[in-house]
Amino acid sequence: MTDFSLHSRLSADTHLLGDFPLCRLLVMNDVTYPWFILVPRRAAIREIHELTEADQHQLLRESSQLGQQLEKVFKADKLNVAALGNLVPQLHLHHIVRYQDDPCWPAPVWGKSSPVPYATDRLQELCRPLLALLIDFIPAERFRSG
Amino acid sequence: MTDFSLHSRLSADTHLLGDFPLCRLLVMNDVTYPWFILVPRRAAIREIHELTEADQHQLLRESSQLGQQLEKVFKADKLNVAALGNLVPQLHLHHIVRYQDDPCWPAPVWGKSSPVPYATDRLQELCRPLLALLIDFIPAERFRSG
Repeated sequence: MTDFSLHSRLSADTHLLGDFPLCRLLVMNDVTYPWFILVPRRAAIREIHELTEADQHQLLRESSQLGQQLEKVFKADKLNVAALGNLVPQLHLHHIVRYQDDPCWPAPVWGKSSPVPYATDRLQELCRPLLALLIDFIPAERFRSG
Repeated sequence: MTDFSLHSRLSADTHLLGDFPLCRLLVMNDVTYPWFILVPRRAAIREIHELTEADQHQLLRESSQLGQQLEKVFKADKLNVAALGNLVPQLHLHHIVRYQDDPCWPAPVWGKSSPVPYATDRLQELCRPLLALLIDFIPAERFRSG
């Protein structure tokens, strides 16, 4: 894990929420969608199948936990879960909460509109209930304030 | 597994290639991209986290196998792996081979251009080397001719 560092583009576009055992949990700085990203803290990984089998299972576990809680907290109509990486090759897994009345339903969200940054208190308000549910999965000392 | 039936839209847009132990393997009927889809043969599942843990692991195993072989056979610059399901709620996992000179790089492919159907022999030519590599993972009796 020593060589991991977050890609500069991910770092610029997101806020850090905390670290699961394997992945860094980020939230996209865009009020348009509740949009979360998991980044395995491993160096030089571009595709899911490049992770070890144990890491793949852990990624899946963290992704499923996150997805389940996102569905619950945000009453999502649908989750969009995706590893694209055309612009940012570092492996990262999008988890986007979609609603049938959101701005680009049913199209995918990427590249559709310019991100609208959160006001700080709005971001904390968004993330607090989610983080409360993830507290068993993200060790407390790894939480960041939104 | 008894109640599984493929969503009519998936069935209309793809060709059946075979069945992994868990998933049906489909190829999108669009020459624009080498575009494969895994559909877990389980009824009434919309999100990955709704699968049992054993099924989640099996989905990951099949997805990683497929991804690894796609990268090899098609010399992909990048894979796009995604579970969206905004139009077709039945859980299905896209695996799209992307090239830096493909028609919509670096944007995602969905909704960008109308699909251009394969000529039959072109489809067989595309899929033969891939299926040869997957033969250990898809039991022989479950292969379909492209």
